[in-house]
Amino acid sequence: MRDFDEKNITEAVVDRFQSTPDPRLKTIMTSLVRHLHDFVRDVELTTDEWYVAIDFLTRTGQICSSTRQEFILLSDTLGVSMLVDAVNHRMPKGATETTVQGPFYVENPPEFPQGFDISRGLKGEALFVSGTASSAQGGALPHAVVDVWQSDTDGYYDVQRTDLSEPTLRARFRADAQGRFFFWSILPSAYPIPHDGPVGQMLVATGRHPWRPAHLHFMISAPGHEKLITHVFVQGDRYLDSDAVFGVKNSLIREYLREPPGVAPDGTKMERPWRRLNYDFCLKSTAT
Amino acid sequence: MRDFDEKNITEAVVDRFQSTPDPRLKTIMTSLVRHLHDFVRDVELTTDEWYVAIDFLTRTGQICSSTRQEFILLSDTLGVSMLVDAVNHRMPKGATETTVQGPFYVENPPEFPQGFDISRGLKGEALFVSGTASSAQGGALPHAVVDVWQSDTDGYYDVQRTDLSEPTLRARFRADAQGRFFFWSILPSAYPIPHDGPVGQMLVATGRHPWRPAHLHFMISAPGHEKLITHVFVQGDRYLDSDAVFGVKNSLIREYLREPPGVAPDGTKMERPWRRLNYDFCLKSTAT
Repeated sequence: MRDFDEKNITEAVVDRFQSTPDPRLKTIMTSLVRHLHDFVRDVELTTDEWYVAIDFLTRTGQICSSTRQEFILLSDTLGVSMLVDAVNHRMPKGATETTVQGPFYVENPPEFPQGFDISRGLKGEALFVSGTASSAQGGALPHAVVDVWQSDTDGYYDVQRTDLSEPTLRARFRADAQGRFFFWSILPSAYPIPHDGPVGQMLVATGRHPWRPAHLHFMISAPGHEKLITHVFVQGDRYLDSDAVFGVKNSLIREYLREPPGVAPDGTKMERPWRRLNYDFCLKSTAT
Repeated sequence: MRDFDEKNITEAVVDRFQSTPDPRLKTIMTSLVRHLHDFVRDVELTTDEWYVAIDFLTRTGQICSSTRQEFILLSDTLGVSMLVDAVNHRMPKGATETTVQGPFYVENPPEFPQGFDISRGLKGEALFVSGTASSAQGGALPHAVVDVWQSDTDGYYDVQRTDLSEPTLRARFRADAQGRFFFWSILPSAYPIPHDGPVGQMLVATGRHPWRPAHLHFMISAPGHEKLITHVFVQGDRYLDSDAVFGVKNSLIREYLREPPGVAPDGTKMERPWRRLNYDFCLKSTAT
């Protein structure tokens, strides 16, 4: 086939994918081509704008490294990550809502015993975190695997800092036989997503700020249940209504309670004020 | 705003672009978000598929270099480049049709006098190229700038070879006072687009071949006229109907005439058979 114009080229490209062996890939490529072409026709993208897009995508790929994922940031800031999350997690009543994983999770974090302090001595307001893992269909999830990660007081994750020699503010815990877990940390801070690259340039050009409200990340796994990836946001944060990645859900906001000096739930004597967070997570069964 | 779901997130993201200072950028981002979200909803993209997409885009960016542009290849193979070309070049009757620029153009090629042999001694079937540059509104375009570039007999461009010390099979010529130009080269070959990277993997996974029919590239500029970027394809090539980048137009196909040994138009004595191509290019006026 020859002589494609702005009207007939889309079906010509779709036709070219007709021999795709995997039917799911064929569906995806066909839909991608249709929507991508509709976008180009819709805005009548100019050649110069196309060059800007090619350059933007190239720089977005080139700034990626083992500790930075700019395409995830792009997906997050365009609301695509939250949309994918929503499409894949139509949760039954009672199940904890999900939100974006974000770019800072590291596979297989170090496992620690309950009660461990994941701040590793970093400065910050002490935070005691407790929670439970249970099934949305009822019943505790014994020995659930609970991965946690968070920003420090200045809003940075360990992978963004060059001065830390070991994983910090990230860990794996294992719930007890009743699905309970607890650990120590420091209060997370609101932070701007990395904005010194192409995604930051996009935010500046469109008059958007790069901030995310303070939160703890949780990834909880248990047999027979969908892996739960979510945050618990800090109530009162100024960015709850303008999260740069559209991740906030009311059900995921909790008060990180201020406690006076005294004895913490695990018996630790606290000489200064500290904070306390509890969240009970409910996982969706894979059986339904 | 909080609690976005698969229905309301699109307008929430669009709202976030309302403060974009540049109205054109606002239009583009708004349309991009709507079409991208429609795609995700349409195929109900899974989280695993999203990861594959993030990884694909990242690798596409990372393989780019000063001599390789994988995102242009991706745009080309999805028909986006030809669509952008079509939207931006609605040509008046009589104007030469356009096609993709492709990833192998190098800015400011070396300028040579008419009649120069751009093959620089590379093996191949000798080719005499002549043509004219004129306005689609009538009249020659004196001293038009004519950039040409092409593949070698094995289907490679100079930037893909490590054994060449100077620009080869690419050059800039300047038409004479009557808009005429001519030069020597060798017959271009059909070639696969670079397919050892992410785009090649996409083609394999979708049962597509990476070949482009043989062609010469032309980029012609003259005052008061739109820059013309096009190819002249070799009639009879087996890939004319399945060009990997959808670039073929019937008006751009010419017979590269076989000539017996003898005297070429510029007086060169040819001891072996040679080829001859003529193409008269008509540029669109910017005045309309």
